[in-house]
Amino acid sequence: MNVSSKRELIGNEAVVILDTIRRLNRRNAVDHLLKMVNKTHPADLAIIFRHLNTDERRNIFNIIAQTDIVGYFLSEIDQAIMLELVEDLTPQYMVSIIKEMDKDDAADLFEALPENVANEIRKGMEKSDREEVDELLKYDPNTAGGLMSPDFMAHDEEMTVGDAIKKVQEYSEEKEMAFYLYITHGPDSRLSGVLSLRELLMHPPYRQLKNIMNPKVVAVTTEMDKGEVAHIVSKYNFLAVPVIDQNYKLVGIVTVDDIIDVIREEASEEFLQMAGVGKDQEILLKPVFNNALIRAPWLFATWVGGIVNILIITSFQVELQKVLALAAFIPIIAGMGGNIATQSSTIVVRGLATGRINMNALGSLLFKEMRVGLILGSFYGLLLGVLAFLGYAEPSKLGLVVGLSIFFSMTLAATVGTFVPLVLRRLEIDAAIATGPFVTTAIDILGVTAYFMIAKIFLTL
Amino acid sequence: MNVSSKRELIGNEAVVILDTIRRLNRRNAVDHLLKMVNKTHPADLAIIFRHLNTDERRNIFNIIAQTDIVGYFLSEIDQAIMLELVEDLTPQYMVSIIKEMDKDDAADLFEALPENVANEIRKGMEKSDREEVDELLKYDPNTAGGLMSPDFMAHDEEMTVGDAIKKVQEYSEEKEMAFYLYITHGPDSRLSGVLSLRELLMHPPYRQLKNIMNPKVVAVTTEMDKGEVAHIVSKYNFLAVPVIDQNYKLVGIVTVDDIIDVIREEASEEFLQMAGVGKDQEILLKPVFNNALIRAPWLFATWVGGIVNILIITSFQVELQKVLALAAFIPIIAGMGGNIATQSSTIVVRGLATGRINMNALGSLLFKEMRVGLILGSFYGLLLGVLAFLGYAEPSKLGLVVGLSIFFSMTLAATVGTFVPLVLRRLEIDAAIATGPFVTTAIDILGVTAYFMIAKIFLTL
Repeated sequence: MNVSSKRELIGNEAVVILDTIRRLNRRNAVDHLLKMVNKTHPADLAIIFRHLNTDERRNIFNIIAQTDIVGYFLSEIDQAIMLELVEDLTPQYMVSIIKEMDKDDAADLFEALPENVANEIRKGMEKSDREEVDELLKYDPNTAGGLMSPDFMAHDEEMTVGDAIKKVQEYSEEKEMAFYLYITHGPDSRLSGVLSLRELLMHPPYRQLKNIMNPKVVAVTTEMDKGEVAHIVSKYNFLAVPVIDQNYKLVGIVTVDDIIDVIREEASEEFLQMAGVGKDQEILLKPVFNNALIRAPWLFATWVGGIVNILIITSFQVELQKVLALAAFIPIIAGMGGNIATQSSTIVVRGLATGRINMNALGSLLFKEMRVGLILGSFYGLLLGVLAFLGYAEPSKLGLVVGLSIFFSMTLAATVGTFVPLVLRRLEIDAAIATGPFVTTAIDILGVTAYFMIAKIFLTL
Repeated sequence: MNVSSKRELIGNEAVVILDTIRRLNRRNAVDHLLKMVNKTHPADLAIIFRHLNTDERRNIFNIIAQTDIVGYFLSEIDQAIMLELVEDLTPQYMVSIIKEMDKDDAADLFEALPENVANEIRKGMEKSDREEVDELLKYDPNTAGGLMSPDFMAHDEEMTVGDAIKKVQEYSEEKEMAFYLYITHGPDSRLSGVLSLRELLMHPPYRQLKNIMNPKVVAVTTEMDKGEVAHIVSKYNFLAVPVIDQNYKLVGIVTVDDIIDVIREEASEEFLQMAGVGKDQEILLKPVFNNALIRAPWLFATWVGGIVNILIITSFQVELQKVLALAAFIPIIAGMGGNIATQSSTIVVRGLATGRINMNALGSLLFKEMRVGLILGSFYGLLLGVLAFLGYAEPSKLGLVVGLSIFFSMTLAATVGTFVPLVLRRLEIDAAIATGPFVTTAIDILGVTAYFMIAKIFLTL
């Protein structure tokens, strides 16, 4: 791989840093490495780590561990690499790192660690820190509660603008999304409104927040699925959304940077799902055997479908014996059907994900895709039929048979490929699996069966 | 579709609004509709419009057109629907809508409109508005320049904190991302730093911005590809990034909500690309014939591959004649190869997109996927071999042949499926096309060829 293609992947600057770090490490230039690490953004270091080998990672991490960015760095890195790195650290040291991390990142780290290691670390933590992290760990990581940060700016609605500004100025530690003030009501901190920092500046200091706040604040509950939270944040162009518990108490906020991660992760999972590889985004970082194990069950669908096809074709053995040329057309008939089915399924699965499907007109969607199948099936069927007619003198009707079969299998495939994801969604099953091996295999079987039946009819076998 | 599945797709509240709007429209209750529209967020209205039929859309849009959210609404809606709606509007009316829109949204709308309509509207616009929109239209919509908004808060570095706060308070119109002040230097407004609104509040009023600003501001150039901008914003968790021209003049900002749109769009395009449907996200909204036209060329790859397979199988006609059972195994051998190739390609394409591939260890990645192919090929080959051995008395070596063929085709497929996207990326071609029909078709051909050659050897045909 030359530098120009590397640049495209990890950014020009990162390539330079990567090369420098590797060189310094070879020369064992610890002081220079420390300087380099301190100058580099933790997010860039996390990316660079993907391009180092295990020894390099260990060496450089020993240096990062001496800096105060180690917590940030660990929250940015891929989970598989993180687990590899922290293996060597003592629980005491981990306690000191976690103390410096954002609470939500610390909770994510705990979530990833083996339970015995996590418990060892918990013992060493201060009670208040432990409680805060434990509070977050109560929530399913796939919900708003699992995603939220408890460090946000909240003010009681009785407070005046002047006092609120003073409080903002006095926050010693970093707050997330320090542009919105969330306004609460009463001793149990119920969410009652929101105010931007700029709006705060527009009002005289004596005015009370409750008189100037925006009371129409959109909030999510701790149990809401993270995909739904992402949908709300991106639909309304929010920078953050407050999270409330079942008593309307404000317990955290979810910020847009976490939402971007959710969107990226969900897209990645959907891609892998569609290709029949499960959902594990870090499959590349897994050992060979685990990788094979994750993929094996998805191949089983194709295998079973293949067995069914063997039985079907075997049952037409007499016909095949008479017209041997039929065998040669099996791959093109299965292939064209599988291909157009994948197209239709993908369009529908995407349409469901982006909301572009008119749920009040599913019948017309199905009819439309069927017509697309008809058009494309006619075109490619005619093309193949003519070719077969010209290429095979005997039997004279072979062109008709294969042309009709392509036409029939493509029309059917487009319709089934549209229908299956809609049904799966209706059954509340993840529609993305429709684009994987299941539908293609089903189409293979339908296509091959139709083909031999058409042959039987027209070749009067 | 019952309400519960609709809810999942467009949100519970939106379903209620949708049903109400349709009912009010049937009753022709214009006043109630107007009230409803005014109460509903434009982003929700845009989603609801996907679920209305053409007549309903026209009626409801006539009502939206009477409100001041019409500009916001048009910027949120799918392009295909937008074009349908504005068809009926006079250029004069369009001018009045565009006047109220954010400049970057207005430019996007111009980009989508037919050229003669756009020119008609431009004539009616005030000079200053027209110039601002024209300025934005200069940039390729796929670059930072095409994405940016020119409405941001900028202050000269010589300004004091007190004056800066006063200026923030005095902005009459809405500024984008009014939480960051971008600091400029000199009469040609070169970007020199950044300051958050909160930081501004922490300093005494007489201090100059240049003494308190953060001079290490990350900026992008107007020509930078929007994907790269998205990468930077999401990597560093920015809420916005300033855009400079070739003279370092600050010309706009790109905000995180636009970045989310870019990420979603690129994921959608990659999905469609992978399925061999081109890149048009709005394919669902296209008429049948256009839909078929977009998809036809991608099917051609499979068609050509199918023809090659016909020739190959025909060339083994003598062997097939002797052992007819060989035909029945064609689909399973092609299918298993195609399936594992798709898995490998998807994993690699995703790994390239998320940066999880170690670009310094491509050889070991290839070797690893080959071993995964070996493991899975051995397993499924053995499974099929044993089954064929038990099922087919004659020829006795058929089990060996099909088992070996599955083993061989799966190992090859995993390796080729890994190799192709890496090569495409190297050649600076979009790697996602590797997961489409091309690789599967190539694998089909390789698998079938290997199968018949193995058969020829072992069955001594």
